[in-house]
Amino acid sequence: MSTKKYRVGIVGASGYTGSELARILIHHPQSDLVAITSESHRGKRFSDLHQQFSGILDTTLIGSDELDIQNLDVLFLALPHGVSMEFVKRWMNSGVKLIDLSGDFRLSSPTVYEEWYKKDHTFPEGFETAVYGMPELHAEAIRKARLVANPGCYPTASILSLAPVFHSGVAVDPNGAIVDAKSGTTGAGVKASNTTHFSNVNDNFKAYGIGNHRHTVEIQEQLSFLVKKSVNLQFTPHLLPVDRGILATSYIQLTGGMTQQKLNALYRDFYHDQPFVRIRKEAPAIKEVRGSNFADLFPFWDSRTNRAIIVAAIDNLVKGAAGQAVHNMNLMLGLDESMGLLQVPLQP
Amino acid sequence: MSTKKYRVGIVGASGYTGSELARILIHHPQSDLVAITSESHRGKRFSDLHQQFSGILDTTLIGSDELDIQNLDVLFLALPHGVSMEFVKRWMNSGVKLIDLSGDFRLSSPTVYEEWYKKDHTFPEGFETAVYGMPELHAEAIRKARLVANPGCYPTASILSLAPVFHSGVAVDPNGAIVDAKSGTTGAGVKASNTTHFSNVNDNFKAYGIGNHRHTVEIQEQLSFLVKKSVNLQFTPHLLPVDRGILATSYIQLTGGMTQQKLNALYRDFYHDQPFVRIRKEAPAIKEVRGSNFADLFPFWDSRTNRAIIVAAIDNLVKGAAGQAVHNMNLMLGLDESMGLLQVPLQP
Amino acid sequence: MSTKKYRVGIVGASGYTGSELARILIHHPQSDLVAITSESHRGKRFSDLHQQFSGILDTTLIGSDELDIQNLDVLFLALPHGVSMEFVKRWMNSGVKLIDLSGDFRLSSPTVYEEWYKKDHTFPEGFETAVYGMPELHAEAIRKARLVANPGCYPTASILSLAPVFHSGVAVDPNGAIVDAKSGTTGAGVKASNTTHFSNVNDNFKAYGIGNHRHTVEIQEQLSFLVKKSVNLQFTPHLLPVDRGILATSYIQLTGGMTQQKLNALYRDFYHDQPFVRIRKEAPAIKEVRGSNFADLFPFWDSRTNRAIIVAAIDNLVKGAAGQAVHNMNLMLGLDESMGLLQVPLQP
Amino acid sequence: MSTKKYRVGIVGASGYTGSELARILIHHPQSDLVAITSESHRGKRFSDLHQQFSGILDTTLIGSDELDIQNLDVLFLALPHGVSMEFVKRWMNSGVKLIDLSGDFRLSSPTVYEEWYKKDHTFPEGFETAVYGMPELHAEAIRKARLVANPGCYPTASILSLAPVFHSGVAVDPNGAIVDAKSGTTGAGVKASNTTHFSNVNDNFKAYGIGNHRHTVEIQEQLSFLVKKSVNLQFTPHLLPVDRGILATSYIQLTGGMTQQKLNALYRDFYHDQPFVRIRKEAPAIKEVRGSNFADLFPFWDSRTNRAIIVAAIDNLVKGAAGQAVHNMNLMLGLDESMGLLQVPLQP
Repeated sequence: MSTKKYRVGIVGASGYTGSELARILIHHPQSDLVAITSESHRGKRFSDLHQQFSGILDTTLIGSDELDIQNLDVLFLALPHGVSMEFVKRWMNSGVKLIDLSGDFRLSSPTVYEEWYKKDHTFPEGFETAVYGMPELHAEAIRKARLVANPGCYPTASILSLAPVFHSGVAVDPNGAIVDAKSGTTGAGVKASNTTHFSNVNDNFKAYGIGNHRHTVEIQEQLSFLVKKSVNLQFTPHLLPVDRGILATSYIQLTGGMTQQKLNALYRDFYHDQPFVRIRKEAPAIKEVRGSNFADLFPFWDSRTNRAIIVAAIDNLVKGAAGQAVHNMNLMLGLDESMGLLQVPLQP
Repeated sequence: MSTKKYRVGIVGASGYTGSELARILIHHPQSDLVAITSESHRGKRFSDLHQQFSGILDTTLIGSDELDIQNLDVLFLALPHGVSMEFVKRWMNSGVKLIDLSGDFRLSSPTVYEEWYKKDHTFPEGFETAVYGMPELHAEAIRKARLVANPGCYPTASILSLAPVFHSGVAVDPNGAIVDAKSGTTGAGVKASNTTHFSNVNDNFKAYGIGNHRHTVEIQEQLSFLVKKSVNLQFTPHLLPVDRGILATSYIQLTGGMTQQKLNALYRDFYHDQPFVRIRKEAPAIKEVRGSNFADLFPFWDSRTNRAIIVAAIDNLVKGAAGQAVHNMNLMLGLDESMGLLQVPLQP
Repeated sequence: MSTKKYRVGIVGASGYTGSELARILIHHPQSDLVAITSESHRGKRFSDLHQQFSGILDTTLIGSDELDIQNLDVLFLALPHGVSMEFVKRWMNSGVKLIDLSGDFRLSSPTVYEEWYKKDHTFPEGFETAVYGMPELHAEAIRKARLVANPGCYPTASILSLAPVFHSGVAVDPNGAIVDAKSGTTGAGVKASNTTHFSNVNDNFKAYGIGNHRHTVEIQEQLSFLVKKSVNLQFTPHLLPVDRGILATSYIQLTGGMTQQKLNALYRDFYHDQPFVRIRKEAPAIKEVRGSNFADLFPFWDSRTNRAIIVAAIDNLVKGAAGQAVHNMNLMLGLDESMGLLQVPLQP
Repeated sequence: MSTKKYRVGIVGASGYTGSELARILIHHPQSDLVAITSESHRGKRFSDLHQQFSGILDTTLIGSDELDIQNLDVLFLALPHGVSMEFVKRWMNSGVKLIDLSGDFRLSSPTVYEEWYKKDHTFPEGFETAVYGMPELHAEAIRKARLVANPGCYPTASILSLAPVFHSGVAVDPNGAIVDAKSGTTGAGVKASNTTHFSNVNDNFKAYGIGNHRHTVEIQEQLSFLVKKSVNLQFTPHLLPVDRGILATSYIQLTGGMTQQKLNALYRDFYHDQPFVRIRKEAPAIKEVRGSNFADLFPFWDSRTNRAIIVAAIDNLVKGAAGQAVHNMNLMLGLDESMGLLQVPLQP
C-alpha cells in the first residue's frame, strides 16, 4: 500500500468549511495538512478560532502570501464567493490542484453567474477550466481537473435526488419538479447575524429566498445537462433550528407509467458503485448522516398522484462541502475515493 | 356589556389540547370552567398533570360519569379519535353544545373515515349533525351547530393557505397542489414514544406519512367543497425539533394569468373580516404566532414557474386546536368571535 | 371598579425587555400604552422590529425628544446600562414615575457601581432616590418611589432563593452560599453576537463570568441588608440553549439544626402574601414559568451535608425584567399588585 | 507495527453505549468486532436499531448464548445495572477480558451497592476482582484486570475535576466540595419516557435527584481513596436540552493559601501524561468535546472566596462511557492507550 503523503493547504481558516476540512484531513492517511491561511487571524493558532482543536491542531495561521505554492499538491479554497475568484486567478497556473468551495465557478458561464450572484466576475477564464465537483456525475472529468468547483450544499442534496429520474429518460414534466429544502444554520456561515441569532432560530422555523435563491440555477443547469434540454425548477429553502444537515423533499411530476419497484431500481442502478449514496427503505433523518459524507435517499412513488417523491438527507458541511471536497481531492490524486471519509454518522 | 358566564367543561385532561383549553378558558371573560374530567387521573388535581398550573388551576379531576351535563352550556372533547365518538353519541341529544377536537367527525362520511382511519365508526349518525369548525369558511353553520368537529392542525394551515385561490375561480391544475408541511412535536401528543424521544428529535428533522397521512383527505374534501369538483392533493408532513407550530409551504400550479398584486388582493379580500388571519408581507416564522390564535399567511407568485406559493404559520395547539375550538364556542354562543383569544405571540 | 387608565410610555423599543413590556401592557386593564421611543428606529413601526406584533401594535416609534412627559404617568426605561442614567437624569424631576430596567441604579452607591461596571456614573444623585424594585422585599418603599431600579434577572432568582433563610436568623455560614445559575440566551440581549450565534449555543452549554459577574454584588448587597452584616457570595452563571428562563441552584451551608419541615415553613411564611412566588413540592423546570411572572421555589434540606439547597425558576424576561417592572408600576400607582400579570405559563 | 487483531464482542446492542462502542470499534486498528448480542432484537440487523449504521454495520444480532466466548479476547457489557452482574458471573472465569459499562461493580462493596442502588447484588464475589476503570487514576491496575468496572458519566467528570486538588494534599474542607452537574438526555438512555419526551426537555431545564443521586457515592469513594479519609460530597445533577455532554461545575472550599498559578500547575502536573485530559485556559463548552474522548478542564481560583472552581466538559457517551471503555481495552491489551480514540470533537 502506497503511503505517499500529499501536501495540502487550506485558504480560509475561520469558517465552518475550513474547520471541517481540517477535521477530515488530519486523519486522512495520505494527506499532510501543511498550511492554513487567514488574512484576518494571521498569527493566531487554528485552535484559537476553533477551540475543539485545542491540543490537536495548534498550527499558526499564515497569510496567503506566505504559502509555498510550489510545494503544495492540493489547495482548498474555503472562502466566500467573490473573494475566491481572486485566489483562483492567482494560482490557476501554478500547478497546484485547486478545489474551490465557493460558488464562483459552479455555474456554466460568467453571464449566468452575474445574473444570479448580482456581482461582476473578475476571472471569467476560470469557467473554461472548472469542473463541477460532484463525483457521482462527473468523476472522470474531476480526475483530470486542475480546478474543481465544489457544489453547493442545497444543490448536492437536490441533484442527487433528481438525477436518477431525469437521467433515466422516464417521462416527466420538465417544469414540474419542486424541491422543498430545509437546512441547518451552519449553511449561513460562522458570522453572527440576526439570521443566526439563537432566539431567532431556536424553537422556530421559516422559509426564505422564495423563488429567487441562487442555488436554483445551479440545480437547473446540472439537470439540464442530464436531460439535454432546459429544465425549470422550483426551489424553496427553509431554516431549521439545527446545526447541521439538509433534508430535501423533492416532487417530480411523472407523465408516464411507474411502479415503486421500478423507481427503486432506477436509484439503485444509478448509484450502484457510489460509496457515499445510501438508498434507504425508510425516509432518512438528518442525524442519521450527521458528521459523515453519506447522502441518504428515499425514493417513493405516490400512485394516487403519479409523483416521485424523493427525500434526501446530507450533512451540509460534509457531503455538502468539506467531505465532497476531499472526495474530489481523492479523485484528483488517483486515490481510493472513500479514503479518509468513512466516519460513522454521529447519532444521537 | 353582558357579563353572563357560560358553564363550560373539558373532557380529557391529560393531553396538550386539554391544557391549552384550560389556559385560554380561565382568562375568557364569559366562560366559567366548571369541570374537567379524566378517567385515568380521576381524583388528582389538574395541576398534578400540568405543573405550570400550580396554584392557578388545582381543580380535582372527575370521571365523565360525574359530569352534570344538564348544567353545562358547552363541552369540549379533548380525546383521541376513536374514543371521542362514544362521548358524542352519549351526549348528542343532551342539549349541551359539543366541540369535538378529535378527528372523528371531520370527514364527510363514515365511509371515508373508515378508509383513512382504518377503524370502524360507532356513531355514523353524528356526521349528519357535525359542522366542520373552521370559522373562516363555515361561520354561519357553526353559529347554529350542536356538534362542531374542530379541524386538524395540518388541515387548518393547509386549507387557510389554499382556499382563497381555489375559491376564487382562478385557473389552476386541480391536481397540481402540493402542501409540504412541517410540525412541532406537540402534534404527536403528550405520550412518550420513540417518535418524540428527545434524542430522536433534537437537532434532527425528518419526513413521515409520505403519501398516506390521514389529514390529506380532510384537506382534499374541504377544497373539493370550495371548487365543487374533486381535488387531488399532495401532502407531506415533517417533524420539526420544536414544541409548537406548523409551517406549511404550499405550491399551486396556476394555468392562467396572475400577478403578485392580484394574488395579494385575493388573500386580503378572502380574509377581509377575519380577526385571526394576518396577511404578511414577509414569510412568517412559527415563533411569530407561538401561543396565539393567529394564522399568518404569505402569498407569493413566482412568475418564472407560474406557481402561487403560500407560506402559512400557526400554533398547532392554538389555532390548530384549542384556540380554534374556543373561537367556535364564541360563535356558537353568539359572543364576539375573538373574545379571550387575543394573546400576543410569545416571541422570543 | 375603577377604570381609570394611566398613560404609560416605553423608552427603548428594540430590545426584548421593550417587547415584553408591550406584550404585558397592551392587555393591562388600567394602562394605556401611548408612546414607544427608539432613537435608531424612529419612524418605523413597532411591529417592524417585533413581527409577532403585526396587526396588534403597529404604533410608530418616536424619538425620546418627542415624548410629552407632562402627560405621562409612568415611563419605563428599557435601555442598556450606561445609557439609561442619562434619561433618568433628564426626567428625574419631571413628575413622571420612572422604572429603570437597566443596572444603573441597582447598587448601593456610585462607587460600587463604578467598581463592578467599570465605567463612570454620570448621575450619582439618582442613587439617593432610587428604590430597589423587588416587591417581595421592598413593597412599601416602591409604593412611594419616584424612581425604581428594576432588579437584574439573576439577582431576582438568587435573592428570592436565599432571602428566607438569610432573613430568618437561622445559623448559616455568611460566606458559605453558592449560587450556580443557568440562563437562557435572551439574557444576553437582542443583538447578534458570537455568544448568541445559534451554532455556538444549540446543543451546547458553558459557564461564563466565573468569579466576577456583576450580578454577584447586587445579590450580596441585598442579602447584606437582610442580615445586617457583610455577605460574601459565590455566583456562577451558565448559558443554556434555551430562549427564556433562569434556573438557579443555591447552596447554603447551615451551621445549626434544621429539618425539611422547618425549611418549608420558612419559605411558606416568608412569601405568605406574595402573588407570584410559588413554593413547589418538586424541583421546578423553567418551562413551568415560561412567559409568566411566577417565581417557583423548591427548598430542600440535605441532612447528610446540612445544606439548604434551593432551586428557583423564573422567566428572565418577565419576573426577571418586564413583569417585575409592571408589578412595580402597579405598586407605584396603588393598583392591585397582580393586575395584568396572571398569564398562565406557556408549557409546552 | 503490530497488526494483530483482537476479537471483540458487545453484549447489549440496543442502547446508546452499544452503538457508541460500535462507532469507535469499527475504526479501531487492532480490534475486530465479531459479535453483537441482543436478547430482544436477536435476528435483526444492528443497523435496524441504529439507522446511522445502514450499509456500515449490518451484522445480525445474536443471543448471548450463541457467543463463542472461547474465541473472544474482550467482551463489553453494555447492559443496565442489575442485568450486567448476571453476565459477569457467567463469564468471570472464561478467560475473556470483561469491561462492564453498568454500575454493578463500580462501588467498593455489595453493601454500599445495595444501599444506593436499592437492590440485591447477586454476584458479590465480583467486587474483589473488579477494577475501577478510570485510566487517569488506576492505569496500572487496569492493565492487569480481568474485570473492569467502567465509571459512570457524572463520576468521570466529577472525579477528574476534583482529584488533583484532593490528591495534592492542599488544605481543603473535606465536606466542602459541591459538584453542580448538568447532563444531556442520552444519560437517561435510549428508552422513551416522560423524562426524555421532547416537549418536556426542549427549551427547558431542571434539577433532579437532589441529595440522593447514586453517583454521589461513586465520587465520594474515589475521592476518599485519594485522600485516605472520608469525604462527604454534595452532588446535584440537572437535565440539559442537549443530546450529549456533561458540564460539571465543582466548588472546593480551600482552607489554606492558593494562587491561580499554583492551581494551574496542580492540574497540569496531575494530568501530565494523559492523552485525553486537556487543561484549558477558558471554561470549555460541551460541544468542544462532542463525539470525542477528551475531558476538558478549566481550574479557576477565586481569591475573593478562596474556592477552587473547576469546570469540566466531557461527552457522556464517549469519555463518560464507550470511549473510556475502549481506553480500558487498550490498556488491558497492552496497546497504545489512545489507539482508535483520537476523533476530533464535532463542533458545530
